[in-house]
Amino acid sequence: MKEKEQRKKNIANVQGVKIIPLGGLEQIGMNITAIEYEDNIIVIDCGLSFPEDEMLGIDMVIPDVTYLKENIDKVKGFVITHGHEDHIGALPYILKDVNVPVYATKLTIGLIENKLKEANMLKSTKRKVIKYGQSINLGCFRIEFIRTNHSIADSAALAIFTPAGIIFHTGDFKVDFTPVFGTPIDLQRIGEIGKKGVLALLCDSTNIERPGYTMSERTVGKTFDNIFADYSRSRIIVATFASNVDRVQQIVNSAVKYKRKVVIEGRSMINVVTTAADIGYINIPDNTLIEIEQMKNYTDDQIVMIMTGSQGESMAALSRIASSIHKKVSIKPGDVVILSSSPIPGNEKAVSKVINELSMKGAKVIYQDTHVSGHACQEEVKLIYSLIKPQYAVPVHGEYRHLIRHAEIAELMGIPKDNIFLISSGDVLTLSKEKGAVTGKVPAQGILVDGLGVGDVGNIVLRDRQHLSENGLIIVVVSLEKHSNQVLSGPDIVSRGFVYVRESENLMEEARAVVEKALDKALSKNNTDWGKMKSEIKDSLSDFIWKKTKRNPMILPIIMEV
Amino acid sequence: MKEKEQRKKNIANVQGVKIIPLGGLEQIGMNITAIEYEDNIIVIDCGLSFPEDEMLGIDMVIPDVTYLKENIDKVKGFVITHGHEDHIGALPYILKDVNVPVYATKLTIGLIENKLKEANMLKSTKRKVIKYGQSINLGCFRIEFIRTNHSIADSAALAIFTPAGIIFHTGDFKVDFTPVFGTPIDLQRIGEIGKKGVLALLCDSTNIERPGYTMSERTVGKTFDNIFADYSRSRIIVATFASNVDRVQQIVNSAVKYKRKVVIEGRSMINVVTTAADIGYINIPDNTLIEIEQMKNYTDDQIVMIMTGSQGESMAALSRIASSIHKKVSIKPGDVVILSSSPIPGNEKAVSKVINELSMKGAKVIYQDTHVSGHACQEEVKLIYSLIKPQYAVPVHGEYRHLIRHAEIAELMGIPKDNIFLISSGDVLTLSKEKGAVTGKVPAQGILVDGLGVGDVGNIVLRDRQHLSENGLIIVVVSLEKHSNQVLSGPDIVSRGFVYVRESENLMEEARAVVEKALDKALSKNNTDWGKMKSEIKDSLSDFIWKKTKRNPMILPIIMEV
Repeated sequence: MKEKEQRKKNIANVQGVKIIPLGGLEQIGMNITAIEYEDNIIVIDCGLSFPEDEMLGIDMVIPDVTYLKENIDKVKGFVITHGHEDHIGALPYILKDVNVPVYATKLTIGLIENKLKEANMLKSTKRKVIKYGQSINLGCFRIEFIRTNHSIADSAALAIFTPAGIIFHTGDFKVDFTPVFGTPIDLQRIGEIGKKGVLALLCDSTNIERPGYTMSERTVGKTFDNIFADYSRSRIIVATFASNVDRVQQIVNSAVKYKRKVVIEGRSMINVVTTAADIGYINIPDNTLIEIEQMKNYTDDQIVMIMTGSQGESMAALSRIASSIHKKVSIKPGDVVILSSSPIPGNEKAVSKVINELSMKGAKVIYQDTHVSGHACQEEVKLIYSLIKPQYAVPVHGEYRHLIRHAEIAELMGIPKDNIFLISSGDVLTLSKEKGAVTGKVPAQGILVDGLGVGDVGNIVLRDRQHLSENGLIIVVVSLEKHSNQVLSGPDIVSRGFVYVRESENLMEEARAVVEKALDKALSKNNTDWGKMKSEIKDSLSDFIWKKTKRNPMILPIIMEV
Repeated sequence: MKEKEQRKKNIANVQGVKIIPLGGLEQIGMNITAIEYEDNIIVIDCGLSFPEDEMLGIDMVIPDVTYLKENIDKVKGFVITHGHEDHIGALPYILKDVNVPVYATKLTIGLIENKLKEANMLKSTKRKVIKYGQSINLGCFRIEFIRTNHSIADSAALAIFTPAGIIFHTGDFKVDFTPVFGTPIDLQRIGEIGKKGVLALLCDSTNIERPGYTMSERTVGKTFDNIFADYSRSRIIVATFASNVDRVQQIVNSAVKYKRKVVIEGRSMINVVTTAADIGYINIPDNTLIEIEQMKNYTDDQIVMIMTGSQGESMAALSRIASSIHKKVSIKPGDVVILSSSPIPGNEKAVSKVINELSMKGAKVIYQDTHVSGHACQEEVKLIYSLIKPQYAVPVHGEYRHLIRHAEIAELMGIPKDNIFLISSGDVLTLSKEKGAVTGKVPAQGILVDGLGVGDVGNIVLRDRQHLSENGLIIVVVSLEKHSNQVLSGPDIVSRGFVYVRESENLMEEARAVVEKALDKALSKNNTDWGKMKSEIKDSLSDFIWKKTKRNPMILPIIMEV
């Protein structure tokens, strides 16, 4: 007891800088972390996550920012590490309530502006482009943007200078000594900051299960060249992530080398390439790009198409082509399709479906050795630990299985076990040179977005959708005369998603008889409690259906009083 | 036209042995292939497949054997290659209609008997154990069972001697020079049969995308030994496939070596181990097995549990333990959990969930290098082609992406392109020394099983379930007076799986007003066509809901005539 009280006191006594993930572990991909010191809050990233399988019908999940709203006077701004959806996607939703300036590198701001334009929020949002090596002051914080490499250009790590010490956040990163655009990650500056003494390192855990180093983006270019040489007479289609500008650059390079014209297809691919071209981040020689409509003027060996859909997303260009519902492109035998990606966990079957469909149409589908990851493997993470040598390690960006593996590696790199924190969404981690501890909890459940509805679909609705999806439903309607409670009409039985009714007429007839019996019984008892009557109907019908079919449809009795 | 007729004539002219897959390409896993020559049919395997994601609420898919039923007089028997669900799982369903003898090796028959017992069909089914090297005569066919290696003991390849030539079917196989139980695949005999001249090779394609060789099962034993040595003070839990008897044997070996007692947990694990022990296929020393209830008499370092659930299946032992709903076992910090399997495509997220949950409870979860595949990689497939040198190649067991890759390798091994057939479920492939061609099509859609219902859930029901799962439903009920068509009660609106109603009272009120308006309009026109009235209600409500929410619930108008 005494010990517990002492601990409580200790926790309350921890003074320092607070690290508060508002998404993350429980909502993988929803990257948003508040950094707080006294009356100052800055927020790193503002991502959305895609729905889990059991979130039926949900479009996306955005963070709960109740804590920011309640402390809106303290919030100085968003600092964004890079332009992927899981780091910027929720901004248009969150800025409505937390309207503070947004700071990021050039391409990242460009992609954020695309989003704000669509949401008609460009005018109402302050934003500022920050250069690598540049610092900004927000309240008591100084934040420096540091060059890293990742699968999108202009990714940054953040060194946050706080009164309690330096927090170093890697963002999503890899170490690429030969990047396609720009220069390698700024290891010199990272070492220099490490030398100053870093309080806490927040480091990417995505690839922490993989030993060794992630290959350079440039290696994929060689693969493209080889494929272009091998299939010099075929039309070539390459699907990749829209946001991987360097990948697109390398496909364009191979196209130019092999004298092919380039068609860009898919809304998000066109968006990103346009934005990147506007700011000079992609170099497409004149007379290289053609419109999709112009393809007919060229032979197959003169064309490369670059498009979205490498994850088997049903509405993306490649999937529509694979299932023959694309309006302008159809696969011909001999076409070569390159999937320049690997399936994100959960997408394996969708990707396989696309590969199968394309193969059946006669395309040669190439999907091995055509991709490298954008995330650091174990040795790269160790490199960062060697340069930063932090007092505390806070693994970020990963499922629990990744964080725990990351913790093992942090320990291997000399961080004491007690100084490694695996924190959950909403945890308030308070750190100072003297002490580190989780000192509180703030709301951080993801908020479900379904159509225009934000947060109006909760567990009850999802449970009903689950029930309906697996078993369908049976509706029982009956009209009763007011007061006398005589049956005026029905019971009628309607079902959806249960059985093919025409083949189950007998079953439905018997079901009706079961309901009639239950109804008679309830009415004979002069039962006027309709709730009770409904549950009697429900129970007896449910028993009957289970016995007959071993199924459990949702049963909805409706009583109309006439 | 002339050419087409000629082709038709050619096809009709093909005389020979027919190969008819009744499952397979369109229903991955549902392995069942009829071999027909004149009045003789034998059937290789009789598997079930697990439902695809879009088959909501479906328990399993079994083959359509209309063709066998229509030709029941010709059908001589089932010859089964091995005891996995995708090769034997549909037998209890199919034998009801196609009651012919079943031939297989010892363990396979044992596992089939377990199934027949459960279905109360043991007495009504003739079955016979066949030894490796033994042949049986069924009609005009002679079938020889040949030893192979796979992730279940007693797997066989089949050499089918037909009047049109030899058909060689590998079954699922790998080449294991150092198997745990029994001897390596009988390459000598396979070579000998090849030397006689083989008409067609039906060869496993599962791992055809992987270069090289699959590792020996024995290598996993070494990994177990290492883990047992490293974690000598922890309780160890190993999850693996119930049917992998050799894997279980190796865990038992490590347990005995490190002086631990073994607990077997999970219904199918207990089933298989019992069956294997009965016939001497697994060797568990006396005083090794203990009951789960006895665990309390031992310390953690004296216990190994072997259980099901390595695929994250929600009802299996390990998943129940991970989510704290197992009655007898709960995870303690320091427990070591070994996942001895790799996720089957589609199960990745479920497996990840289990790993995360176990890690959060403090278990050390080990899932790398703890499994080898049971299927041949590219070099092993090439080996079989070198030994068999068939006239025709018919890649089997795989998605189209695998079959097409297999075809490339068959071509590399010298099979002319025209002699390689990628056939779909229901295709009738007729082969003779002179000619090979697809000459017909028989019914071969999978039949959906939902509870006790076999085939009563079709596309309409599945479409409704999909719609309900993503959008929920709104029911509109109204009572009208007969003849006068006056509204006596309602419209009432009930929704499920749409929005959380308490927070959407306004929306529901407005929806009611929209329905009332549509109803008034329809009634004022003296509309007595209720179908029309329903679609007017549906359309106007649907428009309103879409405009307000960008969602598309199922709308069900019900009119009660009183």
